[in-house]
Amino acid sequence: MHPPDQEELYLLYELQKPYIARTPLLYSETLSNLINGSVFIKAENLQRTGAFKFRGALSRLLQLSDSEKEHGIIAYSSGNFARGLATAGRLLGINIHIVMPADAPEIKILAARQQGAEVILCHEFSPSREEAASQQAIDLARQHNYTLLHPFDDLKLIKGQASVTLELLEQAQEKNITLDSLVCPVGGGSLAAGAKLAIEDCSQKPLLTTAEPEHYAGLKKSLVNQQHERDNGQTPSICDALQAVTPGVNNFDILRNSNSQCLAVKEVFIREAIQLSFRELKLVLEPSGAIGIATLIQYPQYFINQSVSIIATGGNIDSRQYRDLLIQDDIN
Amino acid sequence: MHPPDQEELYLLYELQKPYIARTPLLYSETLSNLINGSVFIKAENLQRTGAFKFRGALSRLLQLSDSEKEHGIIAYSSGNFARGLATAGRLLGINIHIVMPADAPEIKILAARQQGAEVILCHEFSPSREEAASQQAIDLARQHNYTLLHPFDDLKLIKGQASVTLELLEQAQEKNITLDSLVCPVGGGSLAAGAKLAIEDCSQKPLLTTAEPEHYAGLKKSLVNQQHERDNGQTPSICDALQAVTPGVNNFDILRNSNSQCLAVKEVFIREAIQLSFRELKLVLEPSGAIGIATLIQYPQYFINQSVSIIATGGNIDSRQYRDLLIQDDIN
Repeated sequence: MHPPDQEELYLLYELQKPYIARTPLLYSETLSNLINGSVFIKAENLQRTGAFKFRGALSRLLQLSDSEKEHGIIAYSSGNFARGLATAGRLLGINIHIVMPADAPEIKILAARQQGAEVILCHEFSPSREEAASQQAIDLARQHNYTLLHPFDDLKLIKGQASVTLELLEQAQEKNITLDSLVCPVGGGSLAAGAKLAIEDCSQKPLLTTAEPEHYAGLKKSLVNQQHERDNGQTPSICDALQAVTPGVNNFDILRNSNSQCLAVKEVFIREAIQLSFRELKLVLEPSGAIGIATLIQYPQYFINQSVSIIATGGNIDSRQYRDLLIQDDIN
Repeated sequence: MHPPDQEELYLLYELQKPYIARTPLLYSETLSNLINGSVFIKAENLQRTGAFKFRGALSRLLQLSDSEKEHGIIAYSSGNFARGLATAGRLLGINIHIVMPADAPEIKILAARQQGAEVILCHEFSPSREEAASQQAIDLARQHNYTLLHPFDDLKLIKGQASVTLELLEQAQEKNITLDSLVCPVGGGSLAAGAKLAIEDCSQKPLLTTAEPEHYAGLKKSLVNQQHERDNGQTPSICDALQAVTPGVNNFDILRNSNSQCLAVKEVFIREAIQLSFRELKLVLEPSGAIGIATLIQYPQYFINQSVSIIATGGNIDSRQYRDLLIQDDIN
């Protein structure tokens, strides 16, 4: 038996199981040596649709009312949520409409369309690409009576994302590992909020480390100042999936009282993490999916002698961009 | 209890367990759709050292006598066996010397050296690069009283390689899958011979399909003519690890009476398999590791409606070559 708060998370996880992959928890010798500890990669790039977002999207659709299902769904997304939602919609027979920023990676736009979703490209980028796309989705929902889903700031969805962490803790237990730290990439914060919920009543209580790109560290700013804040988002980041400048309200609420460590990560280490994943882990990671590994490379001192699990959230990257990111590796 | 012949294989597998990774068996939606069946990738690119060869090398070293351990080991290898052997040697404290063809991928040469092995580069390529390197290893063994290990034609090593298949069948059982086919890349044939031994007394009896590059299909030729033969090896192949022009004598003996399907695979499909693994599976595969997937792409008609497992044997590829192989993908 699980404690009452966790009961719901486990139930949602059970409902996902017929559709999702149980992604492996992979030991990395190279990363372990870096911190003189043990590092385990939760390889959600191997999840159906190539990213963890499928879990939350699916979970959310499974909880719709019949009338909501009938009218269809609209959401905005920079990519991985779009692909996850489109696939979940196809599997469950629900019409999906998605507003995406026009500069989203082509592979993500194509993938959503191939799954039968209607993709509307948003060419507005002010006040931020996320907020412009969000507004367009709100307008379309009103016009067409679609149900509007938020890509990360929705309590039902957050609880669905918790399954990544439940599964990871289950796998750690199977391997007799007690985790000291859990590293979560953060855009809007649903994965980290879900992780917080999953850890809460668990026998293992790894310290949650959140990883955000520099200039997009809205969660770090908010937690430091204990109020909902924005980062400047001025310099572009290669992490196309982590460009939310401020965390979701629900996510911030869940995370604000948690004992967590918030780190902002430089682009150069994200590139290095992608190359290391190629060379040593044999995993294709997109920049946003590699930021957890980059955190360990930039801040090894925070993880010395620890057992650490890093969520590698996704691997959806155009081959052109991937080739460019590997070039530096040739030179070394 | 296992039948007597299998008892030894399971024992060798048990001895490997403290050192090896239990690599995941991953379902692929894209490949499943291709044959209207179910395809599971045994991801040995995620094995320690980036390839399955580590299992056999380790297993072989674990069976050395004390005097053999003391004098050290010599072997020739085009790469993955070198890296696997070097790592196993380091772990077990045994001196390793390896003759490698001078044109072996730099990543493989470097990796063996980084693990403390002495690498001797062989610049002879006649009668074939494998045979020239082999001769040099034999000469050095005589001079220095090293124990000579054959990279694929050694019964103890073959039995060690069987652990890939034992593990895969175990995982299939855990997932309630009954496999119809098992696709094995073949260079010298130790993986396929090991697979044959593992399948022999198992409750699941998938049909063994061997995959060789065109012009290096020595096993196919030998099995068709029921005698040990050579392929011409005239056109170069991108599969640097599968350039044996003739199967090992022991491997041929084990495989000659088996009910197996031998396929020769064109380079263009190997390239496509690498791209598909990047795009859909998020796995980095080297050409030799992708040939099993290429087999399914070239010959889907042989696998229609089946449950198939493909061994993806390795992921050790230079980033420069990988980038070149992805270029075609950009154009599509």
